[in-house]
Amino acid sequence: MQPIPKARFEQFSDGVFAIAITLLALELHVPHLVHSTIRGSLWELVPLLPTVLTFVLSFITIAIFWVNHHQLTQQLGALTKRRILWSNMLFLLFVTLIPFATRIIGENPLHPLAMLSYCLVLFGGSLSFSTLHYTIHQSLGQAHLRSNRSALGPIVYILAAFVCLVSIPASYALLIIPPLYYFLPKGHTAGPSTDTQ
Amino acid sequence: MQPIPKARFEQFSDGVFAIAITLLALELHVPHLVHSTIRGSLWELVPLLPTVLTFVLSFITIAIFWVNHHQLTQQLGALTKRRILWSNMLFLLFVTLIPFATRIIGENPLHPLAMLSYCLVLFGGSLSFSTLHYTIHQSLGQAHLRSNRSALGPIVYILAAFVCLVSIPASYALLIIPPLYYFLPKGHTAGPSTDTQ
Amino acid sequence: MQPIPKARFEQFSDGVFAIAITLLALELHVPHLVHSTIRGSLWELVPLLPTVLTFVLSFITIAIFWVNHHQLTQQLGALTKRRILWSNMLFLLFVTLIPFATRIIGENPLHPLAMLSYCLVLFGGSLSFSTLHYTIHQSLGQAHLRSNRSALGPIVYILAAFVCLVSIPASYALLIIPPLYYFLPKGHTAGPSTDTQ
Amino acid sequence: MQPIPKARFEQFSDGVFAIAITLLALELHVPHLVHSTIRGSLWELVPLLPTVLTFVLSFITIAIFWVNHHQLTQQLGALTKRRILWSNMLFLLFVTLIPFATRIIGENPLHPLAMLSYCLVLFGGSLSFSTLHYTIHQSLGQAHLRSNRSALGPIVYILAAFVCLVSIPASYALLIIPPLYYFLPKGHTAGPSTDTQ
Repeated sequence: MQPIPKARFEQFSDGVFAIAITLLALELHVPHLVHSTIRGSLWELVPLLPTVLTFVLSFITIAIFWVNHHQLTQQLGALTKRRILWSNMLFLLFVTLIPFATRIIGENPLHPLAMLSYCLVLFGGSLSFSTLHYTIHQSLGQAHLRSNRSALGPIVYILAAFVCLVSIPASYALLIIPPLYYFLPKGHTAGPSTDTQ
Repeated sequence: MQPIPKARFEQFSDGVFAIAITLLALELHVPHLVHSTIRGSLWELVPLLPTVLTFVLSFITIAIFWVNHHQLTQQLGALTKRRILWSNMLFLLFVTLIPFATRIIGENPLHPLAMLSYCLVLFGGSLSFSTLHYTIHQSLGQAHLRSNRSALGPIVYILAAFVCLVSIPASYALLIIPPLYYFLPKGHTAGPSTDTQ
Repeated sequence: MQPIPKARFEQFSDGVFAIAITLLALELHVPHLVHSTIRGSLWELVPLLPTVLTFVLSFITIAIFWVNHHQLTQQLGALTKRRILWSNMLFLLFVTLIPFATRIIGENPLHPLAMLSYCLVLFGGSLSFSTLHYTIHQSLGQAHLRSNRSALGPIVYILAAFVCLVSIPASYALLIIPPLYYFLPKGHTAGPSTDTQ
Repeated sequence: MQPIPKARFEQFSDGVFAIAITLLALELHVPHLVHSTIRGSLWELVPLLPTVLTFVLSFITIAIFWVNHHQLTQQLGALTKRRILWSNMLFLLFVTLIPFATRIIGENPLHPLAMLSYCLVLFGGSLSFSTLHYTIHQSLGQAHLRSNRSALGPIVYILAAFVCLVSIPASYALLIIPPLYYFLPKGHTAGPSTDTQ
């Protein structure tokens, strides 16, 4: 296989990210309102709450994935190797599954199996991203000792998968940790500011 | 976080805009025609009218958002800062919700709560666009005194949200103001012609 | 309004084209096969035939629109004017309606009103493309006397709209003319080889 | 027709690939879980297994198509001829049908006709890719004696189409051959390393 120019590789990935993040809202269930007054139909919206929360969480998660993916591929040279290409494909497979997992929660809001699927998809996404991260750094010949931060995602998500068998709210609480961590000011960390997670 | 090259930032945003605007038509409800003659089935199309109007309004609104977004990011340098990136993400979140809000109206045409959702999504979109506008101008160190025109959208949309509790047609009339204003010849305004709203 | 760089203008249009052409297949109705043998269930596929024909016709029509759009915007300079931008948006509106009109036919295969909608959407598409063609040529200050070929599309499609009230197969036959005409060798025409329709 | 710049040609194709691969997950049927416990509802997921397998197979197939398409168009010069353009469109038509064929299997898991449709779509995709391959190599004036490897796809898929009339599992086994072959180390082949299949 000939190496693939970085531009088209990024273009394809960006397309998948943009479509996955836009499809999230398509998966939202539109309620058919029975009551004709606002006051009466407001109660019909209450069951939508877990779906809306999951939608926002999925949106932020895909957005963070996109930013991190960006940071990572920026370090690549002009050409992409076969191994990197297919690590990326595996990662994108999980990205395309996020809208699907969001819809499963939307249709079975408080069901442990729906929550389990959601956690496993996010786990697969963050684990395959770490693999891609590792593959790219290895191909660049860089020491990747400081990539330990990228282990946070997989650990939290697999934990959330186990926790949801016992308590769904606790599992939700865990899923919020990676985005929160991402948005925390990074000034107090000892590591360099160019980290990718 | 390293700054993100403007090209990929715009590419991702353009993808979301293009998908959201194309999905609008996907959300249109296809009638299953019962009458076999044209004359008879024309009456079956009458309930579709509010949906079609909302579709056109949403299409124009996303198109104007895209043009304005374009004008705005053109002023950016080659690299995008973290704060701008996430203001943009918040704006895109509301853009992806426009097809969803359009579908809510399509399924509950004259319901005040459907109209309320639609107005609130457009309000969120225009408010987050103003925030993005403010963030970018601040980062460029420009005086943004003339950005007062970008306040028109949020004000009209929040007004429409309140009005729809009383009268849905009046609320619709309000929603048409921002596009109309946009297409009016700008020659008679005292401001500079390079304004972004 | 500041002029918009051609690259992003084309990128957005290409996105809409690519999504509309891919959504066509999404609109295809998946049959739930009742018979368990091939022989028995083949008959269940017969009602799908008009849908499949319409799908192929829509695919070719969007593809030709894309090629023509391409040829046209290639003549543009680096920047796009407001008038061209909005002619383009009107054209894209009809492009996004093609999958919707295809689905209407899929759900009401031999209904004259479904056929009428389909013809009117194609008519709107080709008419707005001719307008875009005229607008761009006018802005370039070119004589557009030879653009008479671009009148073929609108004329045939409006004719097909009237004919479908009498005979749906005759209307279908008319819809096939523009693609056929497009694929005919152009050597025998007296016009220049750089025409855009 | 004027030749089309390669960049926009690739951009459009990449858009279609990205959307088709992302829509695959959209087509997955979301189960409405009846049992409220994990143990009970796990059994409800068993019928999903063929769908998930087909999803993964379709994802890998589109990904390989994309990589091969990439390798092929990289050999093109800056401009694209009419014949290449329309060979590419035919290929993209089958790419957009892959999510549709995947959904047919999802809704009729073990039905021979569903499997037949899937095999025929993949056959059409690989045959039209071989045609595109041939057209491009011909236009480049290259000897394409070594393109015999690109015959593998069409042969295996048409074989799978016939086999599914007798045994669906055997047909599935055949469909796995092209991806397996693709991922095998190519070191032991006598051919040059720049082959495109």
